[in-house]
Amino acid sequence: MKDFTMNAPKTATPAKPYTYEKSQAAFQRAFQVIPSGIYGHQGPSEGCYVPQTAFPLFSSRAEGSYFWDLDGNKFIDYMCGYGPNVLGYLDADVDAAARKQALIEDVVTIPSTVMIDFAELLVDTVASADWAFFAKNGGDTTTLAIMTARAATHRKKIVFFNGFYHGADPWTQKLDYPGVLEEDVANNLYVDFNDFAAIEKLFSDYRGQIAGLIAQPYMHGNFVDNVVPDEGYWQKVRALCDAHGVVLIVDDVRAGFRLDLAGSDHYYGFKADLICFCKALANGYNVSALCGIAALKDAVSSISYTGSYWMSAVPFAAGIACINKMKALDTPTLFRQLGTELTTGLAAAAADHGFNLSISGEPSLFYMRLADDDSLMLHQEWIAECVQRGAFFSSHHNHFINAALTSADIARTVEIAHDAFSIVRANHPEMS
Amino acid sequence: MKDFTMNAPKTATPAKPYTYEKSQAAFQRAFQVIPSGIYGHQGPSEGCYVPQTAFPLFSSRAEGSYFWDLDGNKFIDYMCGYGPNVLGYLDADVDAAARKQALIEDVVTIPSTVMIDFAELLVDTVASADWAFFAKNGGDTTTLAIMTARAATHRKKIVFFNGFYHGADPWTQKLDYPGVLEEDVANNLYVDFNDFAAIEKLFSDYRGQIAGLIAQPYMHGNFVDNVVPDEGYWQKVRALCDAHGVVLIVDDVRAGFRLDLAGSDHYYGFKADLICFCKALANGYNVSALCGIAALKDAVSSISYTGSYWMSAVPFAAGIACINKMKALDTPTLFRQLGTELTTGLAAAAADHGFNLSISGEPSLFYMRLADDDSLMLHQEWIAECVQRGAFFSSHHNHFINAALTSADIARTVEIAHDAFSIVRANHPEMS
Repeated sequence: MKDFTMNAPKTATPAKPYTYEKSQAAFQRAFQVIPSGIYGHQGPSEGCYVPQTAFPLFSSRAEGSYFWDLDGNKFIDYMCGYGPNVLGYLDADVDAAARKQALIEDVVTIPSTVMIDFAELLVDTVASADWAFFAKNGGDTTTLAIMTARAATHRKKIVFFNGFYHGADPWTQKLDYPGVLEEDVANNLYVDFNDFAAIEKLFSDYRGQIAGLIAQPYMHGNFVDNVVPDEGYWQKVRALCDAHGVVLIVDDVRAGFRLDLAGSDHYYGFKADLICFCKALANGYNVSALCGIAALKDAVSSISYTGSYWMSAVPFAAGIACINKMKALDTPTLFRQLGTELTTGLAAAAADHGFNLSISGEPSLFYMRLADDDSLMLHQEWIAECVQRGAFFSSHHNHFINAALTSADIARTVEIAHDAFSIVRANHPEMS
Repeated sequence: MKDFTMNAPKTATPAKPYTYEKSQAAFQRAFQVIPSGIYGHQGPSEGCYVPQTAFPLFSSRAEGSYFWDLDGNKFIDYMCGYGPNVLGYLDADVDAAARKQALIEDVVTIPSTVMIDFAELLVDTVASADWAFFAKNGGDTTTLAIMTARAATHRKKIVFFNGFYHGADPWTQKLDYPGVLEEDVANNLYVDFNDFAAIEKLFSDYRGQIAGLIAQPYMHGNFVDNVVPDEGYWQKVRALCDAHGVVLIVDDVRAGFRLDLAGSDHYYGFKADLICFCKALANGYNVSALCGIAALKDAVSSISYTGSYWMSAVPFAAGIACINKMKALDTPTLFRQLGTELTTGLAAAAADHGFNLSISGEPSLFYMRLADDDSLMLHQEWIAECVQRGAFFSSHHNHFINAALTSADIARTVEIAHDAFSIVRANHPEMS
C-alpha cells in the first residue's frame, strides 16, 4: 500500500470542520415562509445533490473575495454569487458610483441619461454590439433574443445545444419539468455541441423554419466536464447561420466579461447577431442587457417588452463603473492567470494524494471533478471537506474568479484542498 | 356663446409652456444606441399615442412627489415611475435601510437572513400569503403563478379578462404581436370582466382543462375607463374557482399595497390562491414577490425557477422599511383621500370650463378621460397642456398617488388644470 500522506505538506494538520448551527436554525425559519426554504442553486432542489450539511446556508456579510456565514465561518468564495461578484464584494468604486446616483434618482417616470451613457459604453466595449437594451434578468434578455429572432425571420424554430442553460422561462425548460407544457418547448430543436455535421443536417432538415440558434460560448453544464469549442467550430457555425438566414444568439450571461470584455464571441473569433449579458455587468447591481447588430435593431424595436424597474438608474451607474474598472484591471487576463494558478495548484494537490482532479472549461470559469469515481460521490466528499474548511466550491457547477482574489487566497485554498484530500484518503482505505 | 373663462380662477394667467431642448437632444443620442431610443411607456411605441413633443424625455433628479427633467423643468409626478414610487422619491427611511444593508452585503453566493425577515413580514401583512417567493419583475411572478397553477392541477388552460396586462412574456401577449407564436398563447382563454354568466359558460365548456384564472383586482386598462368589480362579483368568481378546482391568481403588480396593505383581494373581500406583487413593494428598489396559500407551497417548490439577482439583500431591506412605513402612514387611506381630493378638483375645474372629465377606477390609481370627445384627441390636448405646465399626467394610463404628495401639490395641479382647460377652450371655438 502506497502512503500518499507522505506527499502532503508537512504542516498539514486538517483543521476542525466548520459547523452550521445558526444556518440550520435560520433554514427552519425560512422553510416556514419561503417555498423550499431557499430557492435556486443553494436550495434543496439542487442541494439534494450535495452533502447539504457540509454547506453554510445563510451569509452574514461579504467583502472582497470572502463571505462570512451566520455562524461566523469565513469562506474564500469561488462561486461569486453564481457570477455577479466580478470585482470583489463591496467594491469601493462601483459602490461609490451607485451611492452617488442613488442620491440623484433611481426609478423615475422618465429615464436618466445614465441609461444612454451605459448603452454607449457597451456599444464601445462589446464587439458585436451596435445597440443595447436593458432589463433585470439574464432570462429577460434570452427571451427577448428569441422573440427578436422570430420577429426578424418570421420563423419559429430555435436550435439549442444539449446541456444548455438559458434561464427559467418555460421555453428554456424540459417537457417533463413541473409547470412546463409541450407548447412551451414545441419549437425547440436540440443538437450536440462541436458536432458540425449534426447541425448541418438539422439546418437542412428544417430549412426555412429556423429563426435562431442560441448558445453559450462554450458548454458549462452541471455535473459534466465543460467543453470548449473545437478549433474553427464557431466560424463554421457562423457561416452556416449566414447561409440559412438564422440569427446567431450568444448567451453570455454566465461567461460574459470574464473571458473577454468585447464579448465571448470575440474571444472565440466570431461575431454574434445578438448577445445576452447579465451577471458580471454591474458587480451585483441588478441589471441585464441584450446587445445586437444594427440589422436587428428594427426587429427588437418592434417588440412590446418592458418591466417595472428596467430603467433604474443606480444599476446603470454601477455598470458603468464596473466595466470601466474591468477595463483598467484587464480582468479577463487577471482571471485567466488566477484561475490557472488555482487549478494547477488543486490538480497538483490531488496528485500528491493519489487522486486525479480533472479540470475543464476556461480557467476563469473552471469546472472540476475527481475522475477517480464517475459517480461523483468521492468528488462531493472532497468538496464537502473543502467547504467545511473555508474554500467555498460547488460540487456540480462551474466556478467563478473575482478580481479581489489574491495569490495568498489561492495558496490558502490549496492548503485546504490538501487537508481535504488527506481526509478523503483516510476515509477510503479500500482505494489505497 | 357661454363665456366659460368667467368661471376660471381670477389669477389664472396660463404660464408659458415648458420646452424640452435638452431632452430632445438626449433622445437623439439615445436613438443611436438603444432600440426605439427609450423603451416602455415613454418610448415611441406608446409615445405615438401622446403628443410626444409635449412630454419631457429624460429626468435629471427626483425627490418626494416631484421630478425635474433635463431642461430643469419641475413636475408634480402622477405616474410615480409607473408605480414604484409609493412613499416619495428618495424616501429617507427606505434609502437608509438600503444603504445600511449595502454596507453588509447584497448579492452573495448564499442569501442573507433579511430574505427570511421580508418573507415573514409579507406573510404577516398579506391576508392570502402563507409564503413568499422573490424575483425581480412583476412578470417573473405572473409566469411563476401560471406554472404553479399548471403544476398543481396538471391542466393547461389559463383564463384572462379582456383588457388584461400581466407582463411582457410571450404568453401574456397577443398573437399578432411581433415575436409571439400561436403556441405561446394556445392555452389562453378570454372573457369579459364582471360578466359572470360568461365565465360560468367558459368554465363549463372547458371543464377539467382550466388550471388558473389570472386577473388584476379591477380592470385598469389603457385608453378606456377603468372598471371596478360589481358588488359580489369576486365572491362568485372565487366560489366558481373552488367548485372547478381552478387556481385564482391575482395580479396585484400595479394595484398592490395602494388599495390595501393586506392585498387587493382583501380589499374586495375575497382571497386569492396566488398573488403577484412588484411595483409598490420597496419604493423602487428592484424586487417582486409571488405569495400564496399553503396548499400551493409544494407545487411552487417543485418548479425550477431562479435568476441571477433574486436573492439580493438590499431590495429586501428596502422592502421591509417600505412596508413598515406604509403601515405607519396607513398609505391606502391616505392615497384614497389624496386621490379623491385631486380628482374632485380636476373634475370641478373641467366643469368650470364646460368640459366633462370622467374619472374611473379607484382614487389612488385613477384613470381620467375628457368625455366630450370619444377620439381622446381633446383629452390628449388637455394632458399636453398640463404636462407642459408641470403636472405630469398620462394621456392613456391610470395614474398613481405617492405619500409625499401634499394638498398644496394638489391645489397647484388644479390651477394648472384650469390653465390647460382655458387654453383648450380657446383653441376650440367650434366647441363653444
